Amino acid sequence: MNDTAMLRMAARAVTALLKDSFVAAGLSDADAARCAALMTEADLTGAEGHGILRLPQYVRRLKACGFNARPNIKVTRSGPATALVDGDNGMGHLVMTRATNEAIAIAREAGVAWVGVRRSNHAGPAGLYAEMPTAHGMIGLYAAVANANHMATWGGTDLLLGTNPLAVGVPAGDGALVLDMATSIVAYGTVKKYALRGLAMPEGWFVKPDTGEAITDPNRSGEGILLPMGEYKGAGLALMLGLLGGVLNGAAFGRDVVDFNADDTSETNTGHFMMAIDVARFLPLATFKAEVDRHIREFRASKRLPAVDAIRLPGDRRSECRAERLRDGVPIAPALMTQLDKLAAELKITPLRERA
Amino acid sequence: MNDTAMLRMAARAVTALLKDSFVAAGLSDADAARCAALMTEADLTGAEGHGILRLPQYVRRLKACGFNARPNIKVTRSGPATALVDGDNGMGHLVMTRATNEAIAIAREAGVAWVGVRRSNHAGPAGLYAEMPTAHGMIGLYAAVANANHMATWGGTDLLLGTNPLAVGVPAGDGALVLDMATSIVAYGTVKKYALRGLAMPEGWFVKPDTGEAITDPNRSGEGILLPMGEYKGAGLALMLGLLGGVLNGAAFGRDVVDFNADDTSETNTGHFMMAIDVARFLPLATFKAEVDRHIREFRASKRLPAVDAIRLPGDRRSECRAERLRDGVPIAPALMTQLDKLAAELKITPLRERA
Repeated sequence: MNDTAMLRMAARAVTALLKDSFVAAGLSDADAARCAALMTEADLTGAEGHGILRLPQYVRRLKACGFNARPNIKVTRSGPATALVDGDNGMGHLVMTRATNEAIAIAREAGVAWVGVRRSNHAGPAGLYAEMPTAHGMIGLYAAVANANHMATWGGTDLLLGTNPLAVGVPAGDGALVLDMATSIVAYGTVKKYALRGLAMPEGWFVKPDTGEAITDPNRSGEGILLPMGEYKGAGLALMLGLLGGVLNGAAFGRDVVDFNADDTSETNTGHFMMAIDVARFLPLATFKAEVDRHIREFRASKRLPAVDAIRLPGDRRSECRAERLRDGVPIAPALMTQLDKLAAELKITPLRERA
Repeated sequence: MNDTAMLRMAARAVTALLKDSFVAAGLSDADAARCAALMTEADLTGAEGHGILRLPQYVRRLKACGFNARPNIKVTRSGPATALVDGDNGMGHLVMTRATNEAIAIAREAGVAWVGVRRSNHAGPAGLYAEMPTAHGMIGLYAAVANANHMATWGGTDLLLGTNPLAVGVPAGDGALVLDMATSIVAYGTVKKYALRGLAMPEGWFVKPDTGEAITDPNRSGEGILLPMGEYKGAGLALMLGLLGGVLNGAAFGRDVVDFNADDTSETNTGHFMMAIDVARFLPLATFKAEVDRHIREFRASKRLPAVDAIRLPGDRRSECRAERLRDGVPIAPALMTQLDKLAAELKITPLRERA
């Protein structure tokens, strides 16, 4: 299914449905609005694997008390430039928003901040959080331990590694440059999107553990091993991010990770880290932004390989997608719309398709 | 040429030749010893692309005043948790040792430290510096802007990106876990090693800019574009590390990078960053190490894909190689030995082959 077969819904309708759903599932008004805004942003910026597609699962988990709808998020300032956040098993979006705000405040004082997070949950696309410090003249660096292990260590077949994403946000003259990458060859949200759209996956994404043969049916991905980006390098990076985002914070990693796709009730104890660096401690912010812009211009002006029509830099797709979807609406697969209709009926709220 | 055709020299002989060479080229006794020790460590740990192979080039640059043999390295503490180091165009090994010691000292106070570096030079393998904080109960994170642009931005052909490496060191019960990866599909030092050994490169490492066809002769790598690891992800990461290690510190990046393989006299203004995180601000160090060890054991015990004989974790090759080379000696290609003989004659010091 290509995008023309998709239904299109206005971003504000998506946000309203999300917010009403979360309020119906027990979140406070402010927390529901925060989660709704971040999930809409995921859909707008092309990370639809982390957008409204996740709503049915999130609501199921909230109702099963797998997520704490009313968390008491605690921040412990463990050093002049460090903090540890205990998310009290709340929605990851709320925990990470709190952690990122803390990182920005600490970096303002100390120049750099490192905030570790435990007892959090799935928080959506990594780029959202890495971008937040850029509005404050800071560089953001974020990573998370994924909520299911789809990868193995290099050469292995036991599923002990997640797609642990890394994101970096850098302030530029015109907004920010944002790199958001899973350490797997593809993000698991993309696999879900392929399944929902009935598409076959390319060879090289998943292999069978017993033979090493490729799996191309996204509905059979659960039988295989998702391969890392850049072979052993991606596996090594996923491992290191897991130690820094998980083990360092007393959060789950490796054998201890709870597969939240298969389990609605167990606490996931998700770990993340967020770092913010105050640019002005190194270079005047305006000078830095001007230099970043100069390099961006030089990259864009580069000669190209045959058959390449334009140079794409980290985050280009995000911002193009955002503009297009704000104008034309967020694409919703018909199968997802059916799920959302059912959810709205259960929650006794206005269904998405009836919202303008 | 395989390793059996290599000459083998004791590590202490390699260190002594390196030290005498640097003293003859104008370094102080202590600085010469520091550079010699770090370059020997590169050779011992299998990063021979950064070891004694670089000596003729380094000495040439010192004699041409392309490196400052007697630098006045300055550290500016720009915030409670940040510092900016000006390397005064000294040997990168000296500048990075100073920057890493500063990061460790600041992280002891603040919990985390971010030290930016400018006006430095090529400093050898990234893993050396990322590992240093681990002996102090800290996690190390290091990156550098490479000293030549062998890569293009994704889809482009202008050589605007280096192989900008990233390294992470994590303390474990038995030493440290160290990930050291170039953001290119292969480190440029490896290409030099292939050339010196007369080996053909695999397809997928270099492509011709006009046709996109593979280049496999390492002596013709200069005509091609080195590909990034993990396609657009590696290119994006190289770009971000360049902004953080270069632009943020007022150091060279992109169009401004000096190719120090082609130029012995221009200052390279090499940028790096080093981060240290004090584990004890998050978890007691012993608990952290025990948890890291538990996860290592679980990774090693994983079932394996067909034809894989053992699971290898980041740094395994480094430590195996180190033990083997301490015992059997550092491998020196005959072509390199000839270069080193010539160098020793020029510097009027005892040649390597006459040292025990």
